[in-house]
Amino acid sequence: MKRRNLLQGAGIAALAAGAAACAPRSGGADCTEGGGEKRHWKMVTTWPSNFPGLGTGAALFADLVTKASGGRITVKVYGGGELVPPFEVFDAVSRGTAELGHCAAYYWKGKAAAAPFFCSVPFGLNAQEMNGWLLQGGGLELWRELYAPFNLVPFPCGNTGVQMAGWFNREINTVADLRGLKMRIPGLGGEVIARLGATPVNLPGAELFTAMQSGAIDATEWVSPYNDLAFGLHRVAKYYYYPGWQEPGPTLEAIVNKTAYDALPADLQEIVSTCALAVNDVMLAEYTARNRTALEQLVDEHGVELRPLPSSVLAALRRASEEILSEMAAADPFVDRVYRSMREFAIRSKAWQAISEEAYLDARG
Amino acid sequence: MKRRNLLQGAGIAALAAGAAACAPRSGGADCTEGGGEKRHWKMVTTWPSNFPGLGTGAALFADLVTKASGGRITVKVYGGGELVPPFEVFDAVSRGTAELGHCAAYYWKGKAAAAPFFCSVPFGLNAQEMNGWLLQGGGLELWRELYAPFNLVPFPCGNTGVQMAGWFNREINTVADLRGLKMRIPGLGGEVIARLGATPVNLPGAELFTAMQSGAIDATEWVSPYNDLAFGLHRVAKYYYYPGWQEPGPTLEAIVNKTAYDALPADLQEIVSTCALAVNDVMLAEYTARNRTALEQLVDEHGVELRPLPSSVLAALRRASEEILSEMAAADPFVDRVYRSMREFAIRSKAWQAISEEAYLDARG
Repeated sequence: MKRRNLLQGAGIAALAAGAAACAPRSGGADCTEGGGEKRHWKMVTTWPSNFPGLGTGAALFADLVTKASGGRITVKVYGGGELVPPFEVFDAVSRGTAELGHCAAYYWKGKAAAAPFFCSVPFGLNAQEMNGWLLQGGGLELWRELYAPFNLVPFPCGNTGVQMAGWFNREINTVADLRGLKMRIPGLGGEVIARLGATPVNLPGAELFTAMQSGAIDATEWVSPYNDLAFGLHRVAKYYYYPGWQEPGPTLEAIVNKTAYDALPADLQEIVSTCALAVNDVMLAEYTARNRTALEQLVDEHGVELRPLPSSVLAALRRASEEILSEMAAADPFVDRVYRSMREFAIRSKAWQAISEEAYLDARG
Repeated sequence: MKRRNLLQGAGIAALAAGAAACAPRSGGADCTEGGGEKRHWKMVTTWPSNFPGLGTGAALFADLVTKASGGRITVKVYGGGELVPPFEVFDAVSRGTAELGHCAAYYWKGKAAAAPFFCSVPFGLNAQEMNGWLLQGGGLELWRELYAPFNLVPFPCGNTGVQMAGWFNREINTVADLRGLKMRIPGLGGEVIARLGATPVNLPGAELFTAMQSGAIDATEWVSPYNDLAFGLHRVAKYYYYPGWQEPGPTLEAIVNKTAYDALPADLQEIVSTCALAVNDVMLAEYTARNRTALEQLVDEHGVELRPLPSSVLAALRRASEEILSEMAAADPFVDRVYRSMREFAIRSKAWQAISEEAYLDARG
């Protein structure tokens, strides 16, 4: 806490005689004019500050909480590495170094094996379905249960929608073409292609361009046109393959330190959860709007060649994905519960999506 | 304003000496413990109270605003007909009889010709695209401009996702089968089928079952499995056709009396808009989750026969839809602006959706 805030708080508390009591205390709090406690929260993120889509979503969340709470919570956002390294966000919020984090659950597989299911798994749910499962299908309750021992409360807080399969300098016509392919693809997607003979590698986004240009890797996935265009990957890759089977609708998460969250009055708890849901809506809208125009630029201005993954390749990837998810479920009882819940949702959802969203997209030509 | 509230407000204000001043005044306001103004807002809706999806969305919005504001705004919801008839919601909020409304913009075509574009038009945007266009593509700005002369501020506040084409007691194999068809289908969808020789009629939801049973109509659309199952339409119709070309992603709206909204402090304005966005997210999740299970019940328990509209029929409906929208645009300069904005969004969006959502739904089999 800053000494200035302490003094301000004491001054305001002294003036606000007769109103609700507020005395300066732990947790970066001073007092509002009405005598309420004023909290200065830090938000650490796994993205660079204001990275399009992901980082702007984090910034929007901070801004909404600050404004909707009338400044009773002011949130300061730290990009990855500014306060803690990107992949220490989970631990930092867990121990209270920061009250808030904005990140993606699949980064925390090493801490909780079921975590990826709350972001995206290969051939899993798309964005609309993730929201259905999390908010109305029991998913969020399981997620809270998983994170509670880490002193964290999770909220869905953004989605990119279906991503792209990635940028390739080798044609993928049959499953055999995956053999020996060096591809940057982290997480479960990487495990899936490894099972089909490819060599997955992990590299930070900033190194993708050079790695593709030098031929150190043959292929890389990143996000979708909105983010990929900014990285210039079209200048170092021949083909842009779709669809993004490895990340069909990744949910981004806001994580809140549970001690800090539990200490909030009920209205501020509601503000935090409601602002997260609002960002969940707006971020997908941002990707939906920006991917459109970025795709047009890639194709019309830069002559990018779009290619669908052949259905035989998709079928092999799907089988390998199912194997890996089943093995994860067999190895961990909590993963098993989460996987069953998600799969039950997915089976019935497929039937409905086929005659609604899919049939409509097809019908409009 | 109730006399009781006035008295309570005066009492609290007297106690809260030294805190922010609050004196009872117009607009249903009394005072909070902190000395702030306390507003009692009415929300009128076009749906029955707690009607699944639409009405529960309105109730959620009221609840979120009440809780997130710590009771500085308490919202009481009135179902259609309880305070004003369903189709007087727009006027009632416009003149301040109620501060809030929850409804659908396409009901207000008679007041503002462009209104349907902010809900759904035949062969228009799906839910994800509506959010993209409204929130990140200029749509919301146009909507605000349209409603400002009515003293209303609109917010997207829910979406049903793609609906069904409806329940039919006649097979639709060719465009000729539409000739003479008596179908309950209101709004622009009705105008489209009329152009192909059918006779659209409008009936309230509560009368659909009897009208189908008696043969007074041959077909009816309503919403989608979640709502249709509750009406028992499967007991009086042979075929359940898809997809809902007439309502591919209807946005529900929260409308706020502009005078009341402008009088709010900035934090409460932010709470109202943020809660609307949160409901925008949750309602689609509710339909996504519930349609799944309702569809399974309809097919497995009630033996409902699902049928796709033939592509020749969809093509004819699409042409007629485009004609009608173009004619509307030619007749009204504001409709023209809105139609161009939406169409520009749609053209680029089709290309992106085809290789993302559609390709993925296809790929997962």
